[in-house]
Amino acid sequence: MKICNVDVVKLKEQFGTPLYIYDKEHLKRNIMLYLNNFKSKEFDTEVLFASKAFCIKEMVRLINSCNMSLDVVSIGELYTALSVGFPMEKVYFHGNNKSLSDLEFALEHNVGTIVVDNLMELIALEDLCKNKNKKANIIIRLNVGVEAHTHKFIVTAHVDSKFGVIYNSNDYKEMMKILKDSKNITFKGFHSHIGSQIFDLDAFTHALEKLIVICKDFDKPLVLNIGGGFGVHYTDEDKPISFDIVSKTLINTCEKALKENNVKIEKLCIEPGRSIVAEAGYTLYTIGYIKKTPNKEYYFIDGGMTDNIRPALYQAKYDADIVGKENELKKHIVTVAGKCCESGDLIIENIPLPEAKPGDLLITYTTGAYGYSMSSNYNKALTPAVVFVEGDEAKLVVKRQSYEELIEREI
Amino acid sequence: MKICNVDVVKLKEQFGTPLYIYDKEHLKRNIMLYLNNFKSKEFDTEVLFASKAFCIKEMVRLINSCNMSLDVVSIGELYTALSVGFPMEKVYFHGNNKSLSDLEFALEHNVGTIVVDNLMELIALEDLCKNKNKKANIIIRLNVGVEAHTHKFIVTAHVDSKFGVIYNSNDYKEMMKILKDSKNITFKGFHSHIGSQIFDLDAFTHALEKLIVICKDFDKPLVLNIGGGFGVHYTDEDKPISFDIVSKTLINTCEKALKENNVKIEKLCIEPGRSIVAEAGYTLYTIGYIKKTPNKEYYFIDGGMTDNIRPALYQAKYDADIVGKENELKKHIVTVAGKCCESGDLIIENIPLPEAKPGDLLITYTTGAYGYSMSSNYNKALTPAVVFVEGDEAKLVVKRQSYEELIEREI
Repeated sequence: MKICNVDVVKLKEQFGTPLYIYDKEHLKRNIMLYLNNFKSKEFDTEVLFASKAFCIKEMVRLINSCNMSLDVVSIGELYTALSVGFPMEKVYFHGNNKSLSDLEFALEHNVGTIVVDNLMELIALEDLCKNKNKKANIIIRLNVGVEAHTHKFIVTAHVDSKFGVIYNSNDYKEMMKILKDSKNITFKGFHSHIGSQIFDLDAFTHALEKLIVICKDFDKPLVLNIGGGFGVHYTDEDKPISFDIVSKTLINTCEKALKENNVKIEKLCIEPGRSIVAEAGYTLYTIGYIKKTPNKEYYFIDGGMTDNIRPALYQAKYDADIVGKENELKKHIVTVAGKCCESGDLIIENIPLPEAKPGDLLITYTTGAYGYSMSSNYNKALTPAVVFVEGDEAKLVVKRQSYEELIEREI
Repeated sequence: MKICNVDVVKLKEQFGTPLYIYDKEHLKRNIMLYLNNFKSKEFDTEVLFASKAFCIKEMVRLINSCNMSLDVVSIGELYTALSVGFPMEKVYFHGNNKSLSDLEFALEHNVGTIVVDNLMELIALEDLCKNKNKKANIIIRLNVGVEAHTHKFIVTAHVDSKFGVIYNSNDYKEMMKILKDSKNITFKGFHSHIGSQIFDLDAFTHALEKLIVICKDFDKPLVLNIGGGFGVHYTDEDKPISFDIVSKTLINTCEKALKENNVKIEKLCIEPGRSIVAEAGYTLYTIGYIKKTPNKEYYFIDGGMTDNIRPALYQAKYDADIVGKENELKKHIVTVAGKCCESGDLIIENIPLPEAKPGDLLITYTTGAYGYSMSSNYNKALTPAVVFVEGDEAKLVVKRQSYEELIEREI
């Protein structure tokens, strides 16, 4: 099995397992599908990479080299972007509970846009800007009440979500009053994010239409950021829409709704995260022991919930292969289980795979999003290395954690 | 509010938030409740701390100073124990998928007992001992088919569990054959772990009786390790049994079953983890913004699922107070939500709390187990500091992660 032109077995020999592998060519293709198709003659467009899906220096460098913008949700992500010289004017800073020092840090570094979540944050930001004599561009996160039908944990826009403010609520009105009088904060528009791993574009078009109607309240053309959440293929149960179609559909919907409502906007933004990195990512494991119980067969791998918590956390499903046996008959129905001392540490349940033996390599697909970024040192497991593969080249971009590093902060 | 004799507000000033705080006096009391009461005149006893619940150098030092033994589930935990000079003969090494290099590391460091999970592991260990001319003491993890009624993720002994081997199965018989002929491996007995956060001692006595019947197959008195899983108080829904009663009940049950079956054992072991550290641990947060939605009121804290993933992962419930307002009327039904960019990042839902304002401190109780140990850098959040408090003294035992450390392995 190869990723780009690099043999997976060679990657194991060079970097060990567990190993996060990214197909850089695939990353670039995904990025360009958005950049090339999310364009309009009626308004500006901006595509932001939602870095929480996978935020490391090399990924931010790639985003920058493709001229894409960046969505960060914490000072940690902002710090990563700063460390590789990412242009701060192309950063959107999200979060429901940014501290005063978070906001101050963002102002000091001239972050392009702060996505204000709530009334209290706006008051804090206004005070800070006054006291520090700083200017800020903001958009406001709106909860437009559109709910995408996906896993309960990753639905975000029901009316009682922790995120955003509800249009025309008392908090909203108060915010508009503050913005009207503010000498330091420039109100640019709205943000709305309706969920994750969504396959039905109707949810987006519905949310977008709601935002456009709200634009009528304002004299100037606004910036509208409709977030991300575009579905990807984890298993054959998922039927994602190609990202060029996603992009074009959203643009067309927006253009049509603007015409119908006789409104202009300055810019339309989207924030793909998972959809850029998920399918370009693989996790490579070595199979250790194999065990049969009365009703199950286990293939034990040398990683688990410490490098991919999504199966335990969201009952997420994955597909996998035994490296070099991709075309063999898949006659064993197995459970791929991790080495964590925890019953719930099962990466895939009931997957048909060929017969494996200890030492075989198992590769899981579509692990590029929320794998590395949610990894932990539970059971004092070491965080795996990350490599980017392109053409014949494999490049180490995150070193495997060492035991010394594992306990370096313990006194 | 004080923990031991230290004001919680002072801890915030000195160490910042989020902060993991451990009451060292409470830790010692819990340890001594087990050590003083888990004793018999009929057989030896050994109490092992299940370090996966909270494995840091200072905790392992405390375990050692109290003369307790240690259960580790990985080389990372073993490495931590080695780093503070923990006596290796008092270590039990668990895990369903120990690699050859894991086993080799354990043999090199003369780990006291290896808990062998399955047939393939025994074969690997026997080969390794032969090749390296090393001796090993082992106990075998049995799946006795006893299932404790608790959350599905933390039940481990159903017949198809990933852990252990079933008595008298083909694999079991094969293992006994290998052990009979082995010149390097000394078979000492059995291990059984039936679940977590269990409140009903009947499950343990039932498992213990099964093990004792199995002892009849052997000429020599065996070591029986009945694991841990003793329930603790997270909220008032939980009614844990005091650990002295737990200890005495297990001892009495064992003595009675031994007499009834006319069997002797060499030693009985238990492995409390959560029950030693959970209630002795607190997490201190600063409240940031407060938000009302149509049906909810949110108190946002400066931590969340990155320092406590149990609510998202197991729907675990916690209790909390606003520091300094413990005795005020709790007239707000609030959701305590983290700062992570994720809808599921809710630490407590629908808890009655007094009115709070930004800057107030919120403390969650019973977070000493699986909080720090399962923490992550999701959203590039920094891992909080850990302090141990005793008398008037607060001692930093794990430093807060820095931004430099956060990206130190990224190239």
